[in-house]
Amino acid sequence: MKWKRSERLVDMTYYLLEHPHQLIPLTYFSETYQSAKSSISEDLAIVKETFEEKGIGMLMTVPGAAGGVKYIPKTSDQEVKEIIQTLITELSQSDRLLPGGYLFMTDLLGNPELMNRVGKVFASIYANQQIDVIMTVATKGISIAHSIARHLNIPVVVVRRDSKVTEGSTVSINYVSGSSRRIQTMVLSKRSMKSGQRVLITDDFMKVGGTMNGMKNLLEEFDCELAGIAVLVEAEHAGETLVDDYYSLVKLHAVNEKDRTIALSEGNYFLKERT
Amino acid sequence: MKWKRSERLVDMTYYLLEHPHQLIPLTYFSETYQSAKSSISEDLAIVKETFEEKGIGMLMTVPGAAGGVKYIPKTSDQEVKEIIQTLITELSQSDRLLPGGYLFMTDLLGNPELMNRVGKVFASIYANQQIDVIMTVATKGISIAHSIARHLNIPVVVVRRDSKVTEGSTVSINYVSGSSRRIQTMVLSKRSMKSGQRVLITDDFMKVGGTMNGMKNLLEEFDCELAGIAVLVEAEHAGETLVDDYYSLVKLHAVNEKDRTIALSEGNYFLKERT
Repeated sequence: MKWKRSERLVDMTYYLLEHPHQLIPLTYFSETYQSAKSSISEDLAIVKETFEEKGIGMLMTVPGAAGGVKYIPKTSDQEVKEIIQTLITELSQSDRLLPGGYLFMTDLLGNPELMNRVGKVFASIYANQQIDVIMTVATKGISIAHSIARHLNIPVVVVRRDSKVTEGSTVSINYVSGSSRRIQTMVLSKRSMKSGQRVLITDDFMKVGGTMNGMKNLLEEFDCELAGIAVLVEAEHAGETLVDDYYSLVKLHAVNEKDRTIALSEGNYFLKERT
Repeated sequence: MKWKRSERLVDMTYYLLEHPHQLIPLTYFSETYQSAKSSISEDLAIVKETFEEKGIGMLMTVPGAAGGVKYIPKTSDQEVKEIIQTLITELSQSDRLLPGGYLFMTDLLGNPELMNRVGKVFASIYANQQIDVIMTVATKGISIAHSIARHLNIPVVVVRRDSKVTEGSTVSINYVSGSSRRIQTMVLSKRSMKSGQRVLITDDFMKVGGTMNGMKNLLEEFDCELAGIAVLVEAEHAGETLVDDYYSLVKLHAVNEKDRTIALSEGNYFLKERT
């Protein structure tokens, strides 16, 4: 079957979006569509221009025999601003306030469209770096981790609080939770990571950073390297944060349980230099 | 700015794929692209034909003033067969065998591309039904749940084993786990679901179905209705399964710890009538 350009553009767009951060040889497209490489190159130029114009992402062309094309998801600054604004509006609702000054966020973490957008933001930040694995701790960070992973095309590993028979042999560490100063345990299946891998850590919420620091220590047990830290909401607190090189989208300043108000602002996303 | 058809096709494809199961008015496209509705209709006809030709999904057109177009993700039978074959090949590897006859599957559940495909399969099955929420139990089913949710555009709720302060007030039930006959607890935030919602339950593994049955009981506490059950791997066992109307992709027949062999076959996906 001979494909028309219009059909090729639709199918190519689908295929590229489904295979982020994967090098696709031009021959794949020319064979699939029974078309000359010159036509495919013209198609890709249109896709590239539209992706960049609309802030969908970049199309990287790698020349040569082992070359091809790679879709790199990217979120424009304007869209990041919109996402942050959505998060702040949502999180400011006074009925999110829980006893003890906690914020109810579970519904946002269960919203697939929002999580997809959040994941793309973090994937954009780390798009030009070598990241081999995303790590999070059960349960609430898992949706963010999977969404980042989908856009970077790398696996997710989930640290648990307890060891389970279905994980096989595990590595376990003790760490001190930042705010409560309690000793806690983290467990990760031995098969999760190989030594030398570069790991991006993510979670939904960070205060002092005890959990993040725990994951950092766990990385060391696997001879892996910390590549970055991505949190949805960071909370202001007295004293030092245990980790320093992180990105956050939203910052929680204070909650007032009596007036039922929640003070939030942009996280550090726009304050940091990006590579 | 005036858009060319080729650019419209690329951007429209992206927009539709990002908004599954959402009715998009034609005016959205005609305003975005500054194009006549007749041109937009022609564009959509090309997208529709390509989506259907390539097994990407369906494009449903709703006529009238309140009408528009809706992308329904669908997986072709051939692709389902490929996914099942991939899963069987992966799961047959003898190094997945854990003490006690358990199978190590965590890496597959952490593979975003595979989970995306699996989620699309289950979303295809339930594409024509009213589903309001996807429910799973922490931790291993979460990646499947989110992938289904992304393709159906509905929220995920995660049942936990223990109650946590960040969940607010919760509903808790006791249930009997199927294989071990132990009493276990399930907890779900009260805000997770509204009465009358139709819920799809999912998990990575099911033997007797005790956990599934527990979630079914939990639904009743919320006055919600069971819309379906989707499991990645079901395991053969003596006696009755506690739930009956489920879909599975893979069936585990037996493991032999001495010979280190794992006997697997297709699940019931192709055995069941689909609506």
